[in-house]
Amino acid sequence: MPTLTTQSSDLESALIAAHRAEALLARTSRAARAAGLRAVATALRDHRDELVTIADEETALGRSRLESEVGRTAFQLDLFAQLLETDTTVGVVIDLADPEWPPAPRPDLRRHLSPIGIVAMFSASNFPFAFSVVGGDTASALAAGCPVIVKAHSGHLRLSHRIGGLARSALDASGLPEGTLAVIDGRENGRVLVIDDRVDAVAFTGSTEGGRALFDLAAGRPRPIPFYGELGSVNPVFVTQRAASEEGDRIWRELASSFTLGAGQFCTKPGIVFAPRDADAPAAVASHLAEGASWPLLDSRIASGFADRIEEMTARADVDTIVEGKIEGIVASPTLLRTDLDDYIADPAGLGEETFGPTTLVVEYDEEQELLQAAEQFVGELTGTLQAQPDDHIAPPLIEVLESRVGRLIWNQWPTGVSVTAAMQHGGPYPSSTSVRDTSVGTAAIDRFLRPVTYQNFPESLLPEPLRR
Amino acid sequence: MPTLTTQSSDLESALIAAHRAEALLARTSRAARAAGLRAVATALRDHRDELVTIADEETALGRSRLESEVGRTAFQLDLFAQLLETDTTVGVVIDLADPEWPPAPRPDLRRHLSPIGIVAMFSASNFPFAFSVVGGDTASALAAGCPVIVKAHSGHLRLSHRIGGLARSALDASGLPEGTLAVIDGRENGRVLVIDDRVDAVAFTGSTEGGRALFDLAAGRPRPIPFYGELGSVNPVFVTQRAASEEGDRIWRELASSFTLGAGQFCTKPGIVFAPRDADAPAAVASHLAEGASWPLLDSRIASGFADRIEEMTARADVDTIVEGKIEGIVASPTLLRTDLDDYIADPAGLGEETFGPTTLVVEYDEEQELLQAAEQFVGELTGTLQAQPDDHIAPPLIEVLESRVGRLIWNQWPTGVSVTAAMQHGGPYPSSTSVRDTSVGTAAIDRFLRPVTYQNFPESLLPEPLRR
Repeated sequence: MPTLTTQSSDLESALIAAHRAEALLARTSRAARAAGLRAVATALRDHRDELVTIADEETALGRSRLESEVGRTAFQLDLFAQLLETDTTVGVVIDLADPEWPPAPRPDLRRHLSPIGIVAMFSASNFPFAFSVVGGDTASALAAGCPVIVKAHSGHLRLSHRIGGLARSALDASGLPEGTLAVIDGRENGRVLVIDDRVDAVAFTGSTEGGRALFDLAAGRPRPIPFYGELGSVNPVFVTQRAASEEGDRIWRELASSFTLGAGQFCTKPGIVFAPRDADAPAAVASHLAEGASWPLLDSRIASGFADRIEEMTARADVDTIVEGKIEGIVASPTLLRTDLDDYIADPAGLGEETFGPTTLVVEYDEEQELLQAAEQFVGELTGTLQAQPDDHIAPPLIEVLESRVGRLIWNQWPTGVSVTAAMQHGGPYPSSTSVRDTSVGTAAIDRFLRPVTYQNFPESLLPEPLRR
Repeated sequence: MPTLTTQSSDLESALIAAHRAEALLARTSRAARAAGLRAVATALRDHRDELVTIADEETALGRSRLESEVGRTAFQLDLFAQLLETDTTVGVVIDLADPEWPPAPRPDLRRHLSPIGIVAMFSASNFPFAFSVVGGDTASALAAGCPVIVKAHSGHLRLSHRIGGLARSALDASGLPEGTLAVIDGRENGRVLVIDDRVDAVAFTGSTEGGRALFDLAAGRPRPIPFYGELGSVNPVFVTQRAASEEGDRIWRELASSFTLGAGQFCTKPGIVFAPRDADAPAAVASHLAEGASWPLLDSRIASGFADRIEEMTARADVDTIVEGKIEGIVASPTLLRTDLDDYIADPAGLGEETFGPTTLVVEYDEEQELLQAAEQFVGELTGTLQAQPDDHIAPPLIEVLESRVGRLIWNQWPTGVSVTAAMQHGGPYPSSTSVRDTSVGTAAIDRFLRPVTYQNFPESLLPEPLRR
């Protein structure tokens, strides 16, 4: 385990600096913040080899995945810069005075969006770049004009502090205030950060257990603050009869690839798949798993959690082990499990728990209509996937059941691979997220860090620039 | 005290009906929901005399105020209907597939807004129509497509159930599902409602103490839900030197009118006013208080709370009583208090507590620069008002300090009178609201009850209507 490097005095310094930066940063122009984001993106690209080398020493993800993640992270920073440069009137609503307005004359009212304040950001273990120091949470918070204090993940501490240093230099060179970004570490420091009165919002990506503990701290403060947590998700997949018979080969091959992608350590991994019994999906999926394939998991904590969960699942009387994976040290090969729909319905919580690592559970059904009951077991998921034909009778009611339970519905594709776009929704009802109205991926992520402020009857010269006409 | 009329079995029936209505209501067209809202508005207008008579028996607000409140409430329902009829693509974002998108090809992604689910709505004592059974919270939730269970306020129970009956008939006649709206009462029933797993969001208008207790219940659930609480606010007013000398007469006259409007029982009442010492504001304001004016407060609970608070304030060594009001039964005449800025800075919490009733505190300052320090004492307010001249040097820094602390900034007008428009922001940082990004007045209030859902790679025929092209 890396040693704790942030002292409580460092944390206090970071908070003081962020507090000083808060008003200054709120006053910066959109162009200035865009320039800062682009400078950070450039710093990432310029130092890609060095950063990937550190990340490769600290994690088991491998250089090629890490290199592409640097690209994604830099792209994400540029995308928020572009948003600032182009959408200059987002959130602006202007109601001119109207003496005829009912029930009483309306004054001149002009609303814009203002930064929410200091953001505490908890980075993720499984994305040392894209969901870490200058990942989507930080990019969107900085774009909104909020200082960010990052709690680094213990799985890649050296990388986090190095990226923090590069990013601070880049922001500084762009003229953004000192205190705009800080990186701290240590679990207790993170806890202190969440309850510090100067902090105004928290962004978190991680486990349901860890996220809920911090959520409770944020909600229990004398002054409660928003907690944007992206927690657990099982990402159910529903395969219809006709899809299985007409596209089975594609579906089982793609499923084998999707649940083992990144060694099954994505929050969008398809963890449970409902398939018609007569399709013999377990054997088909097993046939698509490459002989002898295995991957190092992120770290020993995740590997031992994975081993425990596999042991628990394979010991169950209602679960058949189709492919028995091995776990040696932190290296795991895929485990494929199956059960019957009736057994799943009898214990959806026990069988449907999120498992980080290369495994999935195929649930076999007899009647397609049973998919509705299966879908109703889910409470809050990042995604729900249909493998179906457009005229399947089950599709419309299944979509309706899923619409209230997931953030993203997917048709004949797979949940892994979360595109960073304006229309992306990466979030969903609890426990997939602690903030059902928000996304942590895509440009809409900026909304989490903005609050409306309305100016009534102000002279033009004293209005914020976007509110002048 | 009115007796409890809702049994726990009634509450369960309401929850079952709302749960059944949830999916049906989510499927209704915007036009159908608009028709329902308009039908409720029409029912209010058609039964205005009867409803005002009941409200007049249950509250001390008086017929003319009650009549205008019915008008405002009906207008509000119509405004949400109009929103549904005109803004048909709100929240829709469409990203077509793009094979060139970095870092990986982008699938077809289309996001729309979906109702959040069942809303528990706690109505307010001081607005038996506009913030009650079919007030802004209910109108915005129904517009979003959410069933609403209203917890009626004990101060106007008969009125609440009568409006509930009329509204249910109107919604029913419009073809909206049974269970779309219910009215329950009883404090314990309200508590049970907030923790019931079927409820997905809570809207509340009331005291900081009561709101915080319910907020804690909502956040502490196994599945936490959003709690949209509009709680307390003192609504500070800052009068500059030049405004006092050039517009003093208007300012002191309008202040006398604003803090006594509705017997000082508005959440936007100006409760604290910073004025230059040499303007002799206390005497000037006192001169504008009509001789012998007095008003019945809402009920005996509020009257006794007001009496206690006045007794506490007038007993303080650091507070001078300029006008000593009387409280006889529930009838109160205005009390005007003053203190010095230094004393206020020494105890902002003690002197700045929200007080329901006709009183305000004038805080006299010597140096205009001190207004910044005064403004910094506030943490979260619905409004902040400047009485100033456009070229006052203090204005820009004062606006900057207030921007991060209030939801609405007002220039040379008054916080009372909250116009129902698109640009209105009625909310602010805690404790003025439990949800800093939201408003409970104006059309943006609908955002609280909508959540984004993204469809990936769906065939046109299976997409929600607004997502088709």
